[in-house]
Amino acid sequence: MTIRVGIIGVGNIGTSHARDLSSRVAGSSVSVVYDFDQARAVQVAEAVGARAVASYADVIDAADVDAVLIASPDQFHAEQALACLAAGKPMLCEKPLAPSEDEARRVLDAEVALGRQLIMMGFMRRFDPGYLELKGQLGPEGIGDPLTIRNSHRNEIAPYGLDSALSITNSAIHEIDINRWLTDDEYAWVEVITGRNGPLTPEGQHDPLFLLLKTAAGTIIDIEMYVQSQLGYEVTCAVTGGTGAAEMADGAYVTTSRRLHRGHGLPEQWLGRFQEAYRLQLQGWITHLETGGPMPGASTWDGYVDALVATRAIESMRSGQRVDIVLPPKPSLYA
Amino acid sequence: MTIRVGIIGVGNIGTSHARDLSSRVAGSSVSVVYDFDQARAVQVAEAVGARAVASYADVIDAADVDAVLIASPDQFHAEQALACLAAGKPMLCEKPLAPSEDEARRVLDAEVALGRQLIMMGFMRRFDPGYLELKGQLGPEGIGDPLTIRNSHRNEIAPYGLDSALSITNSAIHEIDINRWLTDDEYAWVEVITGRNGPLTPEGQHDPLFLLLKTAAGTIIDIEMYVQSQLGYEVTCAVTGGTGAAEMADGAYVTTSRRLHRGHGLPEQWLGRFQEAYRLQLQGWITHLETGGPMPGASTWDGYVDALVATRAIESMRSGQRVDIVLPPKPSLYA
Amino acid sequence: MTIRVGIIGVGNIGTSHARDLSSRVAGSSVSVVYDFDQARAVQVAEAVGARAVASYADVIDAADVDAVLIASPDQFHAEQALACLAAGKPMLCEKPLAPSEDEARRVLDAEVALGRQLIMMGFMRRFDPGYLELKGQLGPEGIGDPLTIRNSHRNEIAPYGLDSALSITNSAIHEIDINRWLTDDEYAWVEVITGRNGPLTPEGQHDPLFLLLKTAAGTIIDIEMYVQSQLGYEVTCAVTGGTGAAEMADGAYVTTSRRLHRGHGLPEQWLGRFQEAYRLQLQGWITHLETGGPMPGASTWDGYVDALVATRAIESMRSGQRVDIVLPPKPSLYA
Amino acid sequence: MTIRVGIIGVGNIGTSHARDLSSRVAGSSVSVVYDFDQARAVQVAEAVGARAVASYADVIDAADVDAVLIASPDQFHAEQALACLAAGKPMLCEKPLAPSEDEARRVLDAEVALGRQLIMMGFMRRFDPGYLELKGQLGPEGIGDPLTIRNSHRNEIAPYGLDSALSITNSAIHEIDINRWLTDDEYAWVEVITGRNGPLTPEGQHDPLFLLLKTAAGTIIDIEMYVQSQLGYEVTCAVTGGTGAAEMADGAYVTTSRRLHRGHGLPEQWLGRFQEAYRLQLQGWITHLETGGPMPGASTWDGYVDALVATRAIESMRSGQRVDIVLPPKPSLYA
Repeated sequence: MTIRVGIIGVGNIGTSHARDLSSRVAGSSVSVVYDFDQARAVQVAEAVGARAVASYADVIDAADVDAVLIASPDQFHAEQALACLAAGKPMLCEKPLAPSEDEARRVLDAEVALGRQLIMMGFMRRFDPGYLELKGQLGPEGIGDPLTIRNSHRNEIAPYGLDSALSITNSAIHEIDINRWLTDDEYAWVEVITGRNGPLTPEGQHDPLFLLLKTAAGTIIDIEMYVQSQLGYEVTCAVTGGTGAAEMADGAYVTTSRRLHRGHGLPEQWLGRFQEAYRLQLQGWITHLETGGPMPGASTWDGYVDALVATRAIESMRSGQRVDIVLPPKPSLYA
Repeated sequence: MTIRVGIIGVGNIGTSHARDLSSRVAGSSVSVVYDFDQARAVQVAEAVGARAVASYADVIDAADVDAVLIASPDQFHAEQALACLAAGKPMLCEKPLAPSEDEARRVLDAEVALGRQLIMMGFMRRFDPGYLELKGQLGPEGIGDPLTIRNSHRNEIAPYGLDSALSITNSAIHEIDINRWLTDDEYAWVEVITGRNGPLTPEGQHDPLFLLLKTAAGTIIDIEMYVQSQLGYEVTCAVTGGTGAAEMADGAYVTTSRRLHRGHGLPEQWLGRFQEAYRLQLQGWITHLETGGPMPGASTWDGYVDALVATRAIESMRSGQRVDIVLPPKPSLYA
Repeated sequence: MTIRVGIIGVGNIGTSHARDLSSRVAGSSVSVVYDFDQARAVQVAEAVGARAVASYADVIDAADVDAVLIASPDQFHAEQALACLAAGKPMLCEKPLAPSEDEARRVLDAEVALGRQLIMMGFMRRFDPGYLELKGQLGPEGIGDPLTIRNSHRNEIAPYGLDSALSITNSAIHEIDINRWLTDDEYAWVEVITGRNGPLTPEGQHDPLFLLLKTAAGTIIDIEMYVQSQLGYEVTCAVTGGTGAAEMADGAYVTTSRRLHRGHGLPEQWLGRFQEAYRLQLQGWITHLETGGPMPGASTWDGYVDALVATRAIESMRSGQRVDIVLPPKPSLYA
Repeated sequence: MTIRVGIIGVGNIGTSHARDLSSRVAGSSVSVVYDFDQARAVQVAEAVGARAVASYADVIDAADVDAVLIASPDQFHAEQALACLAAGKPMLCEKPLAPSEDEARRVLDAEVALGRQLIMMGFMRRFDPGYLELKGQLGPEGIGDPLTIRNSHRNEIAPYGLDSALSITNSAIHEIDINRWLTDDEYAWVEVITGRNGPLTPEGQHDPLFLLLKTAAGTIIDIEMYVQSQLGYEVTCAVTGGTGAAEMADGAYVTTSRRLHRGHGLPEQWLGRFQEAYRLQLQGWITHLETGGPMPGASTWDGYVDALVATRAIESMRSGQRVDIVLPPKPSLYA
């Protein structure tokens, strides 16, 4: 059985997904493509043997679409996810579920009302070999329980211009999610500390941002989010455990010595680091749809909690105060 | 279109291929499985939705087999490849093409007589992200032309007992092949130097083996092959170029500090290092069969040259002399 | 001219200093040694060609002592430094200047009253090749201004039993000092966050400790102090600059592959990491005394500020509140 | 007691030695300096509190010279060492003992005739923390016996123009010496293989050079000597042992991420890598002279054997043949 996927949004990441689904993932094909930019939709559709349609609703309603991939701009995720839920179509929704807690809550409530999980959230780092290796080091056979975790997330240049709230909801949300996954724990509070800005930071914005969080079990976590670092794309995560420490960095195979320098290249953007994670996530999703096995990766509940934490982080950034994180009861659907 | 693959031999590597083809490679399925161990064949067939058959000929002849994967013991590769050629079935043949030049030559001649390329050789390192990164560093934009290359290839324990000829035809043949690919060059001579043995080396055998080769363009290459190193599986390749140097090692994402030690784990065997290369090789093969595009990876010519060089290396090991490498003209089929 | 040094306290570090001064530092000798443990003093004195005396005052007053090295337990530093000042003898005083701001203040005031700098503080990291290399990366030619700095300081086992206040005044004080030096800046506030403890942390104590500081220029600094980490001695410092990042770790020359592991050893304690820094500090001190050139390293002002910050950190640890750091005017003696 | 050193030759390395002896080594001073370039001699002498003299004989004969440091060009070492022996003055002689076996032999014979060891050879790598760490990994507690050793030695640009014989007698001689020290073994044969040259290699010369050696115990050693590598100064040494492997590279403390690159700097020349080894060698020499303890480092015998092996290597480079290495009996003076 081949899962026929309809894609909403074929910017950089949607196009990458289209290529993976058509030529690098077992059991899938791309049947329908939509993009706000019609010419782009036609071009991508042709490249992967699909047809372009005129609206995202046409993707969801198409008879030859078994599942939907939402890769539109952040602000449309919730609306499109709700439409898929209404149509009973399973979907992979790119992160974030929504830029605010309220919108994310509406999607959560709709899925809970429906009574079955149709949404898999696109937090691809949960499929990354690096993070999996890091998580594998935790616990009694490894470095013990995580006591502190320090994350760095650097972009070369903010792709959409620098907006500190967006740095949280669109970028740092990766760390918000992955540290919940690493610790199997929820946050108790968040505090955003702003300080010295980088040379490219515009007036009134903060870059880097420094997020400090503490979990229910007491793990202290910080996240340095620097979207205009100029240095390239680099993600690191360093865990101090009870009996050891583990650091994840980029995993280069080759070290080069050239003209007074020894080292390796950094990618310009995130696909260079997480391409394999994206493919593995898509394969996990397709296999789940094919076999009916448990959904891997992040759920709607995860997407909602992540959006809630991001919202509290923005409040903290604006008030300068620590903000408690209080979650509603977790619906039994996600138990 | 789905390429239906029949697999001959489902030991460790054949089983890994079966899993990849059925669940991690786009456009393929496994339809038929044969193994000398019938129970094993049935077990693997069930796991991947295929049927087991009683002989390798039954795999080749099956109507629902579009292509054959030969993963039997080395000594059967040539015979089975000839049978596939006779039946006109494309195949991926695990390395080596044969343990000796003569047998490899028969397969080469048969394919040349047939007049079209049906055999892709399973030298999966050509698809490995590490080696690709290394090759990408060569040339005028990188470290210049390769002047010397030094390879280490370590196994924890020889899986079939230690036989120095086998260390060449079954293990070092990976380096024999990959250095031809790295340099786009052919060897002029080979010399095998034996020396101090490791603590587990039985009387009359040599381990490690030290192969020294020089290419037509003058690149000096050495290969240290240590099959009973006890340390785990580790492959390194260090190139000195005209204007820089580049070293490939294992590409760990995570560095761990524990009890007076900082570092990362080594795998016990080759799948832990080259799993991704195997998948990419299979995907390349399937996509080639689906689209009719050029065959990627190593050809029968490559398989033949590699077997010839291995044969000369064994002669050198036995005589203690440097042995010239003289190749027949390259058939136009492989131009 | 040879500077004849009298040493007060020959525990681990005092003994190491005695050896360095007698056989690895140009221009110095050890003439007199005192220790609370008289037998120990005699033993060390013999090894370095010095004589043992019965009190620390005898060291300070000795005619053949040109300069004093104070390496006694922390709580005696201030009293002994005051005695040296009173006698007009220059000294190298091991860190901290004192365990509390008040005591440190008395020494500062005495030196200011004296009107000349006799005290060099033993913050040896300022002489460490690693930290020097790191500081050399800062600035416009390097990674730009420091925006955030994250420090880890791990001991295998707390040598004197675990006391969280001591973790600050005796251990984290190294980071308190070195980050002032790295940034050429002073702290605006400190906040100590306690969380999940390690498995060896006794009731009522905190380990690791997580110190958060912000400097006047806005650099955000955190310090993870984990004195019972069990993993060995490890110090790291990661700076994110305006245009790049730099991380300091231990600087091993040799990488070893053994039994499924590749990496290098960590020392059991600090001498294994900072031995060279100690020697360079002593050489800097002796050369300064010989030549009358400017005093290198940390001054009494540095020692005082560090003690003040440590005192505020303890207040924060106890109250759970952020504590502002307000410094008195810097005396012109240290301009 | 202070050892008063007279220095013959104050080029780069002689000047570095002068500074170390006067300000970084315990127990020494520089009293007299000679250089072919008189102005240079005066300048260095002033900087270290010594006086300049008009000939090297004036250094050796000076009443205030307890020991001589020979840092003149290679071709003068033997003559000056013989003069020191005649005067009964102990000396540290920069490597090589001589550019040819014959000259080295004359010095060896003279010292043997004298009946006591006055010459310590300046093979400073024996004092390098990196090589010491590497040697410490050998043996039953470490990686077992050394089975193969692969060395790379790269200069940015040949300081005296490229002459392949000089690449051996002046540069590769470091590896010739240090691998004898690492293995506690002597070579049985040497073979120099020439191949593809680098872009800066002049007609008729070979660069890189590839030396292959085998020791009496059967350890296979190769040395890649690339004096015009353009990449900077880099020395690596990789040992495969019976039960593990160990690689020495440069030991950077700091890793920097900048503009699409992560890594660390390489020095332009050897002092940047071996400065500490030079200081430790000088300290070892001075302490030996002061205390009358055993001479550390390389002896005249070592210097002679190294020169003999270099001479055989040049023969092999010219003939293209493997050359056996036959040593005379080791004089009991060096037992």
